[in-house]
Amino acid sequence: MQIGLIGLGKMGGNMAQRIRNGGHEVVGYDRSETSPRDVSSLEELIGALQAPRAVWVMVPAGQPTDEVIQTLKGLLDEGDIVIDGGNTKYTDDAIHAKQLAEKSIGFVDAGVSGGVWGLQNGYALMVGGSAEDVGRVQPIFDALKPSGDSGFVHAGPVGAGHFAKMVHNGIEYGIMQAFAEGYELMDASPILENVTETFASWENGTVIRSWLLDLAVRALHADPGLKSIKGYAADSGEGRWTVEAAIENAVPLPVITASLYARFASRQDDSPAMKMVAALRNQFGGHAVESASDAAPAQTPGEAAKTAAAASPNAS
Amino acid sequence: MQIGLIGLGKMGGNMAQRIRNGGHEVVGYDRSETSPRDVSSLEELIGALQAPRAVWVMVPAGQPTDEVIQTLKGLLDEGDIVIDGGNTKYTDDAIHAKQLAEKSIGFVDAGVSGGVWGLQNGYALMVGGSAEDVGRVQPIFDALKPSGDSGFVHAGPVGAGHFAKMVHNGIEYGIMQAFAEGYELMDASPILENVTETFASWENGTVIRSWLLDLAVRALHADPGLKSIKGYAADSGEGRWTVEAAIENAVPLPVITASLYARFASRQDDSPAMKMVAALRNQFGGHAVESASDAAPAQTPGEAAKTAAAASPNAS
Repeated sequence: MQIGLIGLGKMGGNMAQRIRNGGHEVVGYDRSETSPRDVSSLEELIGALQAPRAVWVMVPAGQPTDEVIQTLKGLLDEGDIVIDGGNTKYTDDAIHAKQLAEKSIGFVDAGVSGGVWGLQNGYALMVGGSAEDVGRVQPIFDALKPSGDSGFVHAGPVGAGHFAKMVHNGIEYGIMQAFAEGYELMDASPILENVTETFASWENGTVIRSWLLDLAVRALHADPGLKSIKGYAADSGEGRWTVEAAIENAVPLPVITASLYARFASRQDDSPAMKMVAALRNQFGGHAVESASDAAPAQTPGEAAKTAAAASPNAS
Repeated sequence: MQIGLIGLGKMGGNMAQRIRNGGHEVVGYDRSETSPRDVSSLEELIGALQAPRAVWVMVPAGQPTDEVIQTLKGLLDEGDIVIDGGNTKYTDDAIHAKQLAEKSIGFVDAGVSGGVWGLQNGYALMVGGSAEDVGRVQPIFDALKPSGDSGFVHAGPVGAGHFAKMVHNGIEYGIMQAFAEGYELMDASPILENVTETFASWENGTVIRSWLLDLAVRALHADPGLKSIKGYAADSGEGRWTVEAAIENAVPLPVITASLYARFASRQDDSPAMKMVAALRNQFGGHAVESASDAAPAQTPGEAAKTAAAASPNAS
C-alpha cells in the first residue's frame, strides 16, 4: 500500500526503508531540507497521496506532534487515517483522535520499540484504535514488525498502544537499574575480580539472559569500568507517565518508581535532601558536615576524625 | 575425568546426567535410598574414587553443606578437591576453604544457574578459587556449561563464584519485580484490553526481550490473569545477602532492595506497618479505619462515608 511518513529522523528514516523493503510505497516528508525527503511541504505530501490516505506521524512527542496533527486535520479528508508512531503520552491520543474524528478522519496510536536496531531486527509495535482503523494499516505494521509470531499487538482502543509502550519503557527502567545496581555492587566488592567477564558469562544459560544484558556486555567490553561515561541518566517522559498512571490507578510500583528517582538523583550536582540530612546530623549530634566545594572552609583535622566516627555503625 | 557427586535432587540429578553426557564418570551419592545413587554412604563414595579425588557437593546451603564438608574433611586426603555447587552464602566459602586447607584439600565454590532447564540448555557457572584448583575441575565445568563462548566465568578467589551468583539472583529479583509491576499496572488500567497479548508481543524486537519475559508469557498463556496463583513470593536467601553485601560495601541498591521488601510484604496476612498508618490517620483526622476481619464491629454507614472522603485526594 501507499503511506505518507512525516519525520525522517533516526527512527523515521530507518522505518521508511523497512516499509519500502516490505514492498510498499512511502512518500516521506521532513521539515529539514537536508533530509532525504520526497516532498518539501505537508501540502505537497497530501497532494502526492491517493485517497483514502494513510499518514504516519513520526515526530517528537508533545507540541511538534500536536501541531502536525492539527495541520493534517486541515489538509486531510473524510476517510483518511493518521497513525501517530511517536512517543506521545497516551492521554493525548484521545484528544488527537477526537480532533480528527470531527472531520471523520481515523486515528491509530502506535508505540514503536526497536531503536537503532529496528531496521535490521524489525520494530515491535503496540497499537491502539478501532479494529477497522488498525486493519487498514495492517500491511504497514506487518512490514515494520520483526519476523515471527510476536512483535505486534492490538492492545485496545485509542491510547492503548502508547500505554503499552509506556509500560514497556517503565519495565525497561526497572530492568536497567537492576543490572546497574548489580554492576556497581560487583565493582565495589573486593572479592569479585572479573566484573566484565562475569557479566559476559551470564549471557548464556542464566535466568537473567536478555537483550539488555547483551548491551551491557557490549558496553563493558568497549570500556571496562565505564570510565568514559558520566553517571548521569536522562529520561524521556515515559517513566514519569508510568508512575503517574500508577498513581491514577492506585497500583504500587516500588521498583519502577525507584529507578525513575535514581535517574533524577543522577542529574543533581549536589543533593538538597542530603544537605538537609547532613545538617540535621550536625544539629543533633555535632556530626561533621562536608563543605560544599564552592563554599567556606574545609574540614579541620579534628572534624575529619569526627567524620570517621560518624561513619561508624554507632552513629545515626 | 571422574567425579563424585553428593546430592542427586532436582539439580544434582540432572547435572549428573549432563556430566555423563559429556563423557565423564560420575559416582553419585544421596542420603535418600530412593535416589538413583551409585553408592550408599559417603565412605563408600570416597572409596570408589581414585586419588586425587574430586567431589562436587550439591546439597542445600547452610547446615547440610557445612556437615557434608566437615565429613569430607575427615574422609579425603591431601591433594583431593571439593567443589561446592550449592547456593552457599559467599562468606561461608572462606570458612570451608580454610577447614579443608588444614588437610591440604583444595576448594572451589561454584554458583550454578539454570534450574530445571539446565539439563537441556546447560548450566551457567560462576566459580571462585585458585587458578590451579579451578583448572583441575575445568573438564567438568566444560561439560556442565552451555555450548558457546559464555556461560562460565572464573570470577576471582574463593567466594567469588557464590558472590557472582548471589548478585545474579539479586538482579533477577529486580527484573522479576519490574515485569510484575508492569503486569499489575496494565491489568489495572481500563485502557489496556489485551494484557497477555501485549506481554507476548514484547518477546520480539523490544528492548525488554529476555528469558524472564518468555517465562512470564508462558505463565500468562497457561493462566491468563494468573487466577490460580496466590500473590505470595518466597525467597531463598540470595536477595537478602545481596542487600547485606550492599550495606557492607555502602552501595545503594534501591531497586533490588525494594524487590526484596515486596516479597516480604507479599507474605504478610496483614501489615503491622499499615495498621499503624491507619491508626495515625484515625488519630489526627478522624479517618475511618477498616476493622480486622477477626476483630469487633465493622464500619457503620457513617464511617463508610468517611472512608470515601478519606480516599479523596484532599485527605492526607
